[in-house]
Amino acid sequence: MHSRMSLLHSLATDNEKKMVLLVMDGLGGVQGADGLTELEKAQTPLMDRLAAESELGLLSMVDVGITPGSGPGHLSLFGYDPLSWSIGRGILEALGVGAHVGAGDICARGNFCTVGSEGIIVDRRAGRIPTEESAKVVKKLQDAIRSIDDVQVTFYPGLEHRFVVVFSGEGLCEEVNDADPQKEGLPMRWAVAQNEKARRTEEIINAFIKEVWDVLNDEHPANGCLLRGFSSAPHIPSLGELYKIKPVALATYPMYRGLASLVGMDVRDAGETLEQLFHAVGTYWDDYNFFYVHVKYTDSRGEDGNFSEKVRVIEDVDRLLPKILDLRPDVLAITGDHSTPAILAGHSWHDVPLLLWSPYARRSGAAEFGEKSCAQGNIGHMQGEKLMGLMLAHSLKLNKYGA
Amino acid sequence: MHSRMSLLHSLATDNEKKMVLLVMDGLGGVQGADGLTELEKAQTPLMDRLAAESELGLLSMVDVGITPGSGPGHLSLFGYDPLSWSIGRGILEALGVGAHVGAGDICARGNFCTVGSEGIIVDRRAGRIPTEESAKVVKKLQDAIRSIDDVQVTFYPGLEHRFVVVFSGEGLCEEVNDADPQKEGLPMRWAVAQNEKARRTEEIINAFIKEVWDVLNDEHPANGCLLRGFSSAPHIPSLGELYKIKPVALATYPMYRGLASLVGMDVRDAGETLEQLFHAVGTYWDDYNFFYVHVKYTDSRGEDGNFSEKVRVIEDVDRLLPKILDLRPDVLAITGDHSTPAILAGHSWHDVPLLLWSPYARRSGAAEFGEKSCAQGNIGHMQGEKLMGLMLAHSLKLNKYGA
Repeated sequence: MHSRMSLLHSLATDNEKKMVLLVMDGLGGVQGADGLTELEKAQTPLMDRLAAESELGLLSMVDVGITPGSGPGHLSLFGYDPLSWSIGRGILEALGVGAHVGAGDICARGNFCTVGSEGIIVDRRAGRIPTEESAKVVKKLQDAIRSIDDVQVTFYPGLEHRFVVVFSGEGLCEEVNDADPQKEGLPMRWAVAQNEKARRTEEIINAFIKEVWDVLNDEHPANGCLLRGFSSAPHIPSLGELYKIKPVALATYPMYRGLASLVGMDVRDAGETLEQLFHAVGTYWDDYNFFYVHVKYTDSRGEDGNFSEKVRVIEDVDRLLPKILDLRPDVLAITGDHSTPAILAGHSWHDVPLLLWSPYARRSGAAEFGEKSCAQGNIGHMQGEKLMGLMLAHSLKLNKYGA
Repeated sequence: MHSRMSLLHSLATDNEKKMVLLVMDGLGGVQGADGLTELEKAQTPLMDRLAAESELGLLSMVDVGITPGSGPGHLSLFGYDPLSWSIGRGILEALGVGAHVGAGDICARGNFCTVGSEGIIVDRRAGRIPTEESAKVVKKLQDAIRSIDDVQVTFYPGLEHRFVVVFSGEGLCEEVNDADPQKEGLPMRWAVAQNEKARRTEEIINAFIKEVWDVLNDEHPANGCLLRGFSSAPHIPSLGELYKIKPVALATYPMYRGLASLVGMDVRDAGETLEQLFHAVGTYWDDYNFFYVHVKYTDSRGEDGNFSEKVRVIEDVDRLLPKILDLRPDVLAITGDHSTPAILAGHSWHDVPLLLWSPYARRSGAAEFGEKSCAQGNIGHMQGEKLMGLMLAHSLKLNKYGA
């Protein structure tokens, strides 16, 4: 365990205080022609009022200049150094389609492909078959293949030619090379164990692929599959054990529910809309004392490069905020997992605005919540992974260090 | 030695410049209803004038969200990473009652207790006997017991049933378990060495306890003692050797004199009042070039939860400041060892305001010394342990690093 984490662990105590971490995905932005960022442009009377009573700052999720993926961004928000703890791409893709990857399971990213004569991979993406067609193929496979040699097999459909498969059984090992020739026109490259421990997993994977090919023999163009990124769920110490809290995740997208479950949060039904998401906080209010609430659409509109729609999502969140404020949380942090400026239409390296409200917040005297007021805020620039400890401090859940 | 410390050590040179580190214990605060913290509320014309000519910043003594005890807070101010260097609870308690713990000595926290028939510990605190009565018992013991088997024994009275004992002699070892059954109604649990090296210390401690019980045989309720927290003075490199300075501590409370002596400062008489403390700086001005001046009452009033009295102490310090300014120090730092906001009536995790004056200070252009102006100051957020090096720099005592 790393030193800040073990320090916090040694100081943590339980109490009745309740914390809310409201994450607007990709919140941070860059100004448009009038000099205002998405957050600054948005009419957010409630967040502005909160800002006046809050500590403000800017979070660096990984390091200066580094653009975080959703995995590292969230690990940092949850208090884990994202350079020490990592979540494999296979796992993240699995979480993204809602797959459950338990301890000891191995998951992989699958492509449907077109196999030609003598096992030559003619098209690695099976002509990018439509998502609906791909889902039908997945169903056919799941009906035909339930297990390979006592190892249970679970399929999850993805977008276009993509799917995810999870292998559940004893003695599996992720140290297996991709079953994918990488280039088209080459013969199939089968899975190869990287060491003796992974030998059985190699055999199961290759037997599985052959069975898929058999089942799909009469299909076209998706008459085979490739598998990449074999990975098991990472061993991450759970938030509850680390900090003596009872955390719950409320998120409308599977990837974020999955990320939260990897760090030991309970995952409860948050519905599908923003309204349902905010309503869910009240539904579970009595059962938990740490609420991770994830708003996806700020990031989605940023990824679309749509400045004004990102502004609108932020305004929607401000309008729904009373559903949280009326519950009277003891600590409320509002931030993002990374920036997604519309001007870049993608994740960026820019630090993320943070508002931290508690009765013990040292006020910054700001008039609004925005990148500029946060840059002037009393928290200053802070590593994202320190936020969790700061929230614990404001909820009076940490003992004094040393006499 | 740790890397920043060894870097500073390698660059340090001697000169005639004089530095003052004025520590207002628990200085940092949190705003009241009018938005002003204790420091901001205080009328401090002199500190405000200094702030305009100073570098300002906020110090984090341990890490974000961590509430420092007095030990870690001071270690950080003195330039030691408080997560690498630590001062045991036994030592701190010993320092608090003014005990001298030299190299090789072992100290312990003592309780007077009530011993029943057959060595059962009936009351671990001897009915919490009054401090004056306890002091009489300590005197009786010191008169009767001077040494055990060539090991010198020194008693120090504490509050109520508490006292401190220091063992001074050759070959002592702190690795001995507590001589305390922890619960009442159980037979005495005698000291036990944790290893062969500590065997003699175990014997001396148990012989000592038996002798105490003999001397107190006719007393009631304090007819015995328990000993806990055996510890020797930590081996901390001295400030003088590290940085080629001649440091002195001026403090009216024993714990802070003790902390300073652990890092190799001379300790001189600072009287009992704030006036005497500030006067003492002039008294010893010619003898030293680093002055640690400790004001206790800011913390005391904060611990009382008394906002207005903490304000008043800060105003008193401002009024007495000419006693230091008239000596024309080359570098003057004014800060705290941690925050003690009246609203929390205890130590807190909030960063500590820092004012650093020297002819070479890069001015922040602030109008006053307060948490908000420090948050905007040109030093920004800084680890407390870096202050010592910054003071050395401003006193031109550090050579250039590299050609």
